[in-house]
Amino acid sequence: MTDITTYITTEEARFMDELFSLLRLPSISAESAHRNDMRATAERWQQLLREAGVDRAEIVETPGHPIVCAEYTVSADAPTVLIYGHYDVMPVEPLDLWQTDPFEPVVRDGRIWARGADDDKGQSFIQLKAFEYLRRRGELRHNVKFILEGEEEIGSPHLSGFLHSHKERLGCDVILVSDTSMLSAELPSLTTGLRGLAYWEVEVTGPNRDLHSGHFGGAVANPINVLCEMLARMTDAEGRITIPHFYDDVEDLSETERAMIASIPFDEEKYKAAIGVDALRGESGYSTIERNACRPSFDVCGIWGGYTGEGAKTVLPSKAYAKVSTRLVPHQQHERISQLFADYFKQMAPPCVKVEVRPMHGGQGYVCPIDHPAYRAAEQGFAEAFGKRPLAVRRGGSIPIISDFEQTLGVKTILMGFGLESNAIHSPNENFPLDMLRKGIAAVVGFHRHYDEVCAQA
Amino acid sequence: MTDITTYITTEEARFMDELFSLLRLPSISAESAHRNDMRATAERWQQLLREAGVDRAEIVETPGHPIVCAEYTVSADAPTVLIYGHYDVMPVEPLDLWQTDPFEPVVRDGRIWARGADDDKGQSFIQLKAFEYLRRRGELRHNVKFILEGEEEIGSPHLSGFLHSHKERLGCDVILVSDTSMLSAELPSLTTGLRGLAYWEVEVTGPNRDLHSGHFGGAVANPINVLCEMLARMTDAEGRITIPHFYDDVEDLSETERAMIASIPFDEEKYKAAIGVDALRGESGYSTIERNACRPSFDVCGIWGGYTGEGAKTVLPSKAYAKVSTRLVPHQQHERISQLFADYFKQMAPPCVKVEVRPMHGGQGYVCPIDHPAYRAAEQGFAEAFGKRPLAVRRGGSIPIISDFEQTLGVKTILMGFGLESNAIHSPNENFPLDMLRKGIAAVVGFHRHYDEVCAQA
Repeated sequence: MTDITTYITTEEARFMDELFSLLRLPSISAESAHRNDMRATAERWQQLLREAGVDRAEIVETPGHPIVCAEYTVSADAPTVLIYGHYDVMPVEPLDLWQTDPFEPVVRDGRIWARGADDDKGQSFIQLKAFEYLRRRGELRHNVKFILEGEEEIGSPHLSGFLHSHKERLGCDVILVSDTSMLSAELPSLTTGLRGLAYWEVEVTGPNRDLHSGHFGGAVANPINVLCEMLARMTDAEGRITIPHFYDDVEDLSETERAMIASIPFDEEKYKAAIGVDALRGESGYSTIERNACRPSFDVCGIWGGYTGEGAKTVLPSKAYAKVSTRLVPHQQHERISQLFADYFKQMAPPCVKVEVRPMHGGQGYVCPIDHPAYRAAEQGFAEAFGKRPLAVRRGGSIPIISDFEQTLGVKTILMGFGLESNAIHSPNENFPLDMLRKGIAAVVGFHRHYDEVCAQA
Repeated sequence: MTDITTYITTEEARFMDELFSLLRLPSISAESAHRNDMRATAERWQQLLREAGVDRAEIVETPGHPIVCAEYTVSADAPTVLIYGHYDVMPVEPLDLWQTDPFEPVVRDGRIWARGADDDKGQSFIQLKAFEYLRRRGELRHNVKFILEGEEEIGSPHLSGFLHSHKERLGCDVILVSDTSMLSAELPSLTTGLRGLAYWEVEVTGPNRDLHSGHFGGAVANPINVLCEMLARMTDAEGRITIPHFYDDVEDLSETERAMIASIPFDEEKYKAAIGVDALRGESGYSTIERNACRPSFDVCGIWGGYTGEGAKTVLPSKAYAKVSTRLVPHQQHERISQLFADYFKQMAPPCVKVEVRPMHGGQGYVCPIDHPAYRAAEQGFAEAFGKRPLAVRRGGSIPIISDFEQTLGVKTILMGFGLESNAIHSPNENFPLDMLRKGIAAVVGFHRHYDEVCAQA
């Protein structure tokens, strides 16, 4: 049998047929009208997994959309790699901004254009085809399991329960996920850290009803004014979060890590231009990449209160609300931070208002040590496919399922993502470069081979 | 003919029939479905004015709802009192909170219950019946004009144009309005001052699109955070507004006025309990009544931005908005304040955001000197009807039409209002005490008589 590059070239027409068959299914998990499409997509995955050579593939029911599970066993004693992906996609609105039908994939300018082309049908397909190649060659020395869930885009409400109730069956040594992005096509990178998250809704109540701002204004505290004052006090002039003990568990960045970050090519002017701002702002003493990936942040994600309609209406409202979040770094416990914030927010409220804090959501940060055997295997796979060693980068986002995996299954996840900023995931005209698809498959093939090597050496 | 008390008793059944015929008409100016009801109400007023004895009453068209105009001329040389009222009412939602149909008036517990029972059908009816009584007795020595507009509750968009184009016809020496309230049933009062208003919508733009708060949070300024910081800086720790030159034209309260204000019975505990707050907050060094009537205030009337739906969604939004207002005191020019705020807000914006300030609305404050002959007449009318001299009080609200009257027609307005806090204007279960209706008619009769006296003396 041929090498992977030749294999991809020879089989590409079939690959496209298969991937397009997935992309044509409008598996929008958020929209109940697509319930049947969800099941059809799960069934299509089941079929493709079987064709790729798994021992068994089945559809496991959940209270929501089903999860596709498959496994290929070399031996009970062999190490096991669990591959996670998701078969659901984001809604496609606004439809009029799409150049072509989001569910009729086309190849144009060397890219596949369709909803899910990257996130996560295209990226999961990379995993499938790398497995198929090695399986057909009989090369694999470790077991491979797949889970493909159908609710990632709606917050994976049933994944955690599934992990708990299928702990035995999902037993593995490492998890492999292709659902993240690289710095750029020329800067292959592996994501080694993610930020955690704590999220609250706060409610500030002033008077017991909306008041006439003429009759009461100046004498009665306005809850919007008070909310603004309280939120303004959450960060100081240095851009540091003022919650007491917030930084207790925040590790200083090592000089090595700071040097590595500083070595990432980064053009601040381009970055500003891309998002249309004249100036950046963040914690004093840290670079932009450190700020958005390795340091905590405090963002008001939403705010509302009083009159928000057209024109002018005077009112001294009864209530004001905000949705508030912090991104956390590894070692910060989101439950502890959640409590610290709630205590602080309540304590800082002046006596003229009442406040409520509702914790909404939380997730731990994640770090993958770069000396993890599977990380080293991934690094080598990337190096072979892209011709250069990938950078190890921490990213600012949060993928709560990754810390769920660690907490429930006790294993680390390797984030071998092949996305690019220009792929427009979650947006109109989502796309995936064919070149990334090909290099991705090669990189994952390399991962499996090198993983066998490091396991054999251990 | 009888005295006014006997007259009211004798005629009360007819009065109720007439007032109820007005209250039954759902003249909601904000709702286009009620266009015909608006006209029917104007026509009913025209008829009632004719029956009360005006020389002529007509309906004048505007680009919106028509204005009812009437006049009774004693002599071209005699002074003229112009009575202003409005025949439109506020919407009635939420309907399920009304104990009885808002447009089927009933008398219960000594009060008339209906939308408009106070604001302003009931109060305008007081003016009508006081006129009718004096007209029938042939007592009036001055001319009387009436204008009843149909757009007061939607901001009187066509009144100013009407005033300008009918300046001659509306010529008068003083304007009389019953559309305000007294301190309480036991504390008759006349409103001698109103606050002005300046109102803006502000828009703060950070990045050119909503960003992922994980990927960008901490490095890119969040416009909601920035807006909160900016709004928090608009007032200082003493509750003073920080706009430079804002207080330039604010007159210090005289010791006499402060003493008068201090003499108004005011129970702070009851005030707090009524609006459900544990503590009040306002400018240091001023009492609650001074704060809400004689000092400027800064209120955020509305705020919005980012994700405001159910649950948790992380986002670093592109934009944040607020509707912001200041109540002004007499002598503060609203146009100047509007400019001062805009300059200040733009200047305080950090370079990481762009801001826009849209002036929305403004109005001058108003003061009626308590030595004005018509004020003295009103004072005497109140004293006779209520058995005690009314207090002269400045109120915190703004009635832009009052300063329009002053600017366009060059005359002062006497605010002879008979409303009570418990009348629930603009709310479900609006009502008007029969006792206030009767005393109000007597007080306005007294006004006309004493006005003739002071004019004769002049």
